[in-house]
Amino acid sequence: MPIGGGALDLPDLADIRAAHARIAGLVHRTPVMTCASIDAEIGASLHFKCEHLQKIGAFKARGACNAVFSLPDDIAGRGVVTHSSGNHGAALAYAASRRGIPAWVVMPDNAPKVKQDNVRRFGAQVRLCAPTVAAREAACAEVERDTGASLVHPFDDPRVIAGQGTAALELVETVPGLDVVVAPCGGGGLLSGTAIAVGSVSERMRVMGAEPANADDAARSFASGRMEPLAGTTTIADGLRTSLSPRTLAAIRERVNAIHTCSEQGIVRAMRMIFERMKQVVEPSAAVPLASLLEHPAAVRGVRVGVILSGGNVDLDRLPWLPQ
Amino acid sequence: MPIGGGALDLPDLADIRAAHARIAGLVHRTPVMTCASIDAEIGASLHFKCEHLQKIGAFKARGACNAVFSLPDDIAGRGVVTHSSGNHGAALAYAASRRGIPAWVVMPDNAPKVKQDNVRRFGAQVRLCAPTVAAREAACAEVERDTGASLVHPFDDPRVIAGQGTAALELVETVPGLDVVVAPCGGGGLLSGTAIAVGSVSERMRVMGAEPANADDAARSFASGRMEPLAGTTTIADGLRTSLSPRTLAAIRERVNAIHTCSEQGIVRAMRMIFERMKQVVEPSAAVPLASLLEHPAAVRGVRVGVILSGGNVDLDRLPWLPQ
Repeated sequence: MPIGGGALDLPDLADIRAAHARIAGLVHRTPVMTCASIDAEIGASLHFKCEHLQKIGAFKARGACNAVFSLPDDIAGRGVVTHSSGNHGAALAYAASRRGIPAWVVMPDNAPKVKQDNVRRFGAQVRLCAPTVAAREAACAEVERDTGASLVHPFDDPRVIAGQGTAALELVETVPGLDVVVAPCGGGGLLSGTAIAVGSVSERMRVMGAEPANADDAARSFASGRMEPLAGTTTIADGLRTSLSPRTLAAIRERVNAIHTCSEQGIVRAMRMIFERMKQVVEPSAAVPLASLLEHPAAVRGVRVGVILSGGNVDLDRLPWLPQ
Repeated sequence: MPIGGGALDLPDLADIRAAHARIAGLVHRTPVMTCASIDAEIGASLHFKCEHLQKIGAFKARGACNAVFSLPDDIAGRGVVTHSSGNHGAALAYAASRRGIPAWVVMPDNAPKVKQDNVRRFGAQVRLCAPTVAAREAACAEVERDTGASLVHPFDDPRVIAGQGTAALELVETVPGLDVVVAPCGGGGLLSGTAIAVGSVSERMRVMGAEPANADDAARSFASGRMEPLAGTTTIADGLRTSLSPRTLAAIRERVNAIHTCSEQGIVRAMRMIFERMKQVVEPSAAVPLASLLEHPAAVRGVRVGVILSGGNVDLDRLPWLPQ
């Protein structure tokens, strides 16, 4: 397992399989669902991997558990720290609580109380900071220095990428004969892990990323081969407002076949379709793959598609089709 | 199979097993879900039978398919008719479309267009009538007379009751060692079928009904042994605004152990809990069993409980926790 080596260390299939064994008792093997009426609309056979039914309501539990349970005892005992305003913070808090070690989560001081509570309910400490990258990194570094806690980055970490790849590993094992797997892309941890898992299991299977057009740094970086900056973003897919890292860009350039973007309106439409027809509560980011397929159906027409429903943590008072 | 015999004919376990075989290729064997945090809140081990994931989004597909596929060919060929403003209408339309026969659904002329569309999308004809019992029965009788179609009542029919009982049959087969099964009660078709299935499989297992306090005719009729009238009801559980029939009351009096009511506020709370923690979209009626358990936890403390999540057809623009 390449941990903490060169800046671009990436896991391989053996690492993802090891992660799967490591986290087996800590996370759910989530079900796969289908929906005849959505299939008819797209003209493909879709198989949805239900990570919104995962522990803490998102796939992030996989990567966090793999990172936390990869630590040697003496290092783990000093705890873990991360910065996150979303699901990774809750996931790290959950993983640390299962290992019985302390956790600190740095959050912007404008993070909704419900997200802070999601971290605190697993016994982790929340450190608030100004909502800037510099303040966030300074707060993390301070916790590391003061406590000796290990940083578990939300995506730029081979242990986290290996953990996220276990969802696709289960999907391709559960549904034989998939032609393509689609995952949403924010920082690229899930898409990198998915691409490594799928590409290693079968050279025939394609991997597609899906991204809001309003936060399309991954699509642009994928095209240019360079880290393209993400200016301020306005997407409702709050889990995907992050840029790739050089590490995740390297994995995605090597293993992903295409990245499709989608409109904000398309995300709302896909999210409502998943609520209405599949009766599943998903967050906007989780609807981005379906939105991208609805806007680019030719990419999958007639084939068997795996889709990762990444999470279900949405504010039910502010569903995006309601008057805001 | 006792069809069309005495007014109080009821199916037995053999009829429910025959129904299960008859509808096997027409409906889903729905999954069973659990939720650790709801278990902790109630102090029991709950197993949710996911009929909101059933064809047409509700258990009603079971009873309608059993009735439609029980008809001899010559009678079936003339079609089927029912009155329903809700899930039974869509279910009968679905069942008829699968058998390739015509269907007519009588609906009140104030039924929302989305519910009319749910019927029409399976090719059934909608007949609108004034929103009174007399107008509804007259419209049904007219269709029967004009077309020779067979009436499939939403609940007062042993074929329908047998079909609804197949959900509980699957539940007790899938989850061994249940102590009690809880089902919502409107007209009593689901609760009757559940009680016959569960009570016949095991004498040890209890069956509980759950009903809104604002539409508590079943609880009062269960207590008195007589058909107690249901005055105008105001419950948000729109699937449960119906009275028992003498047939369903007979089954419930004989086989059900208790009926617990719940408040309107409790229904909203339980429904939101199912959305937030289980990430499942359910309609208000489907939340009534959980609401009744949250208000009467002593009835199930420490035991293994089966809960039927009856349906998921809810207007996502008017979720009951939002400002109306």
